[in-house]
Amino acid sequence: MTKSALQIARASYVPKMPEGLKGNVDIREGAATQSVLDQEEIQKLFPNTYGMPVVQFIQAAGEPGVSEPVNVGVILSGGQAPGGHNVIAGIFDGIKRLHSDSKLYGFILGPDGLVKHTYKELTADIIDEYRNTGGFDIIGSGRTKLETKEQFDKGLEILKKLDIKALVIIGGDDSNTNACVLAEYYASINAGVQVIGCPKTIDGDLKNEQIETSFGFDTACKVYSELIGNIQRDCNSARKYWHFIKVMGRSASHIALECALQTQPNICLISEEVAAKEQSLDDIIDYIAGVITQRAEKGLNFGTVIIPEGLIEFIPAMKKLIHELNDFLAHNQEEFNLVRRSGQRDYIISKLSKENADIYASLPETVARQLTLDRDPHGNVQVSLIETEKLLAEMVKKRLDAWTKEGRYKGKFSSITHFFGYEGRCAAPSNYDTDYCYSLGYTASMLIAAGKTGYMSSVRNTTAPAAEWIAGGVPITMMMNMERRHGEMKPVIQKALVELNGAPFKYFESQRDQWAVETDYVYPGPIQYFGPTEVCDQPSKTLQLEQKGNIE
Amino acid sequence: MTKSALQIARASYVPKMPEGLKGNVDIREGAATQSVLDQEEIQKLFPNTYGMPVVQFIQAAGEPGVSEPVNVGVILSGGQAPGGHNVIAGIFDGIKRLHSDSKLYGFILGPDGLVKHTYKELTADIIDEYRNTGGFDIIGSGRTKLETKEQFDKGLEILKKLDIKALVIIGGDDSNTNACVLAEYYASINAGVQVIGCPKTIDGDLKNEQIETSFGFDTACKVYSELIGNIQRDCNSARKYWHFIKVMGRSASHIALECALQTQPNICLISEEVAAKEQSLDDIIDYIAGVITQRAEKGLNFGTVIIPEGLIEFIPAMKKLIHELNDFLAHNQEEFNLVRRSGQRDYIISKLSKENADIYASLPETVARQLTLDRDPHGNVQVSLIETEKLLAEMVKKRLDAWTKEGRYKGKFSSITHFFGYEGRCAAPSNYDTDYCYSLGYTASMLIAAGKTGYMSSVRNTTAPAAEWIAGGVPITMMMNMERRHGEMKPVIQKALVELNGAPFKYFESQRDQWAVETDYVYPGPIQYFGPTEVCDQPSKTLQLEQKGNIE
Repeated sequence: MTKSALQIARASYVPKMPEGLKGNVDIREGAATQSVLDQEEIQKLFPNTYGMPVVQFIQAAGEPGVSEPVNVGVILSGGQAPGGHNVIAGIFDGIKRLHSDSKLYGFILGPDGLVKHTYKELTADIIDEYRNTGGFDIIGSGRTKLETKEQFDKGLEILKKLDIKALVIIGGDDSNTNACVLAEYYASINAGVQVIGCPKTIDGDLKNEQIETSFGFDTACKVYSELIGNIQRDCNSARKYWHFIKVMGRSASHIALECALQTQPNICLISEEVAAKEQSLDDIIDYIAGVITQRAEKGLNFGTVIIPEGLIEFIPAMKKLIHELNDFLAHNQEEFNLVRRSGQRDYIISKLSKENADIYASLPETVARQLTLDRDPHGNVQVSLIETEKLLAEMVKKRLDAWTKEGRYKGKFSSITHFFGYEGRCAAPSNYDTDYCYSLGYTASMLIAAGKTGYMSSVRNTTAPAAEWIAGGVPITMMMNMERRHGEMKPVIQKALVELNGAPFKYFESQRDQWAVETDYVYPGPIQYFGPTEVCDQPSKTLQLEQKGNIE
Repeated sequence: MTKSALQIARASYVPKMPEGLKGNVDIREGAATQSVLDQEEIQKLFPNTYGMPVVQFIQAAGEPGVSEPVNVGVILSGGQAPGGHNVIAGIFDGIKRLHSDSKLYGFILGPDGLVKHTYKELTADIIDEYRNTGGFDIIGSGRTKLETKEQFDKGLEILKKLDIKALVIIGGDDSNTNACVLAEYYASINAGVQVIGCPKTIDGDLKNEQIETSFGFDTACKVYSELIGNIQRDCNSARKYWHFIKVMGRSASHIALECALQTQPNICLISEEVAAKEQSLDDIIDYIAGVITQRAEKGLNFGTVIIPEGLIEFIPAMKKLIHELNDFLAHNQEEFNLVRRSGQRDYIISKLSKENADIYASLPETVARQLTLDRDPHGNVQVSLIETEKLLAEMVKKRLDAWTKEGRYKGKFSSITHFFGYEGRCAAPSNYDTDYCYSLGYTASMLIAAGKTGYMSSVRNTTAPAAEWIAGGVPITMMMNMERRHGEMKPVIQKALVELNGAPFKYFESQRDQWAVETDYVYPGPIQYFGPTEVCDQPSKTLQLEQKGNIE
């Protein structure tokens, strides 16, 4: 591996740790817990792992005692997030502290590695190569879902063969739900394998009363905010473009919101608000065009719009259109295939209900085409492939053209579009994620030592200095409720969307009208690792607002 | 202005300076100079500013003497580049050292500000707000060309009114050419106004024997390389996508090459090589598909391709096609407008020569449409709008599909495309650009004090520590030759393309076959300002190779 100067310098960084994980560690157990909803059903589904207490690790007097060696397996599940390597380094250092003969095995390319028995031992040499780095390349990741008894049994074979006592699954809400199902299964058959989850996702949608943030969110948002800030400085220098910037984040708008808090753009759309207010695409276009008009009146023919990836699905009317399209094409694919490409749009319009046909007809050609052509293996429209940033820019232009004719808009409008996602998922972790991840991993090893299963590693109070962070474990069942998935009721961890009553949104809401017309851009710049603490160690604005009600 | 923590911390950075600019400054003049080519014509066009010596500033004994106050005007011309604010800060500090009553005026939104008499005085308070920051927002920039006697005379009015003795034009090759024409004109009429140029452009195409790099290149390449590195880490973790990444840079491939040197991608195309080898689009597709096939044979169904912005224009066959299209549409626009959208492609194919029709027919629909629809006010195809990254990804997919049928390719291919440009033009400058720009500005003020006109500010030996940098001035005529522009022979500064015999390309060429099949990605990470010098102060790899023949 050829290393950059930064990688070499960064390798020697020692993650900051909670006091509670240093030296001799004691465990403090709370009262029995309940799931957030549907207690009866969840308890029935998880007889062995339901109701366990929240636990916390605290520093104890004396030297740490010597434990038995413990072999642990680790899996990276789903999309990459900055800090994954440090979770693994934390687990490694934790189990090595328990006993120097402990071993860590990494399963290759996600859950598949467990089922297909592809793995490698992660030795000190390997771990040291990956400390404080971005990416999941140490063992790779994958999207296979661990759901079936066959997978569980197949996995158990290799776990037994390697004498693995505990498995750590690093993943998002679904992966942690599955980790809990696996924990329950292994407990029910007395397999002798504990399962611990770790909260990972840049999307920031795995958080709740017990888990204050998922790792990677901080770093990814900082990378996107660096870029948005750079674009805003460009925008404010050239003074002639509107930049439409879509950011990753799947359904939830946490990333868009955090980027807005960091950069103060002229516009940021929040999907959850669009849904709550039942806004149409037309309303959104009107809103954006309205701000553009206001700024044009002040001679400011430039600006920035941040767009969350999942927007389309949150517009009720678009949801209906997509639903009808999926349904129609499922039954008429063959007939549709016979229509000449140039006639497809008119064909679709003629077949839809009036309401949906009108919306479909209003869409730019490229988007209309995407809606009928790019479908997933189940025949569904792939909403994530729709270039919302281009869709909005084109439709806003049309609206402004119309307003120009009416004399309502007198500015000049040129747009440039961007989409940021892959740029941030594997960035080198910020100090926050570097420390947070290492602590999550180290905590996982302490949960293993304490014999816990069905727990998620938890590190809290992270807006305080790292020494004051609180490490412990939360029973995964505690975060669950029953939801309909693919037509069936399933126990799942509640996904956290942006709360319109939460402090981050409330703050944004209180500022946005001013940001819209003023040019009060903030330029966060690139993530720094060596500078003053107020530059290098700040948690996300979202977390600051959630925990302290204000931004530092 | 709301400031980020980094902006606040960075404001107090003191740029490193050449010893020669510290304390009492002496000027050392060399021998008379010649233009690089067409000496006779250039001399005739620049009777007052031709043949002047290269000058160098050196530290002299004693304290600096007191000069008269001097009023200076400054213009930012053309596209943004990181460090522009520090050029202005350097000028300011330089003329204030000459005399505390000296004044600096900034003309607003580029050369237009001079002609339209819009300006503002840049006081110490304003300058301090912008030290070490990215962007050109202190006075804005613009693309108006200063070319006509009317503009020059109009400008002189305001220069006289403000008692401005010298004008500094910060711009690329064209702007510096025009600076020299202006210097010559003001000298010829004894206007009493000196004109000094500063070499700016992220594209890196303003460099020669005298100017070793243009400012902004270093920072922009580092931002793009940060992102490419992040994508490569993602690519190497997910192991399932080929990323096609276009980078800015206009005609020259300097940025693509520098990014390749920093990140070691699997493929980087160099336009200048494509032209020299007279490669067709077909050859390029074959080359990319070939590397993808080689990697697939090793089980590596992922990779990265860096594409220079100007590629299309360097493919001889595409150039011919575009030429015929421009010509055809210029004469048949009305008839074309009558063709139904769905029939336009076939219509064009029926009208072009066989050779060009074949190429046109091979292009993906979106690109074919761009070639006929998105044209500039002169009716020419806007090559810069063509999404080359998507064009290549689509055509490579088709080629691989064909090879799959032939049994020649057995891999899986999915692609993701990116374009990086606006993300880097206004980034906060790297230490290199921060120091380099400040020195360029300070040097400009010393050239003014020395009564020079028609010079470009020059700082050399920049791979050495800043104290050893060599500051001075180069007569702009020295860099000129005669070139055909819009059908007329004009004196211009030679644009520097990538030299296929130069050390940067040679090094790349020696490594690329290995980078293609191995996965030897480098992850440079974000620009650092506070860390160890090997992380924070490295000049570009291009410059290291050019000056020392190797990379540190």
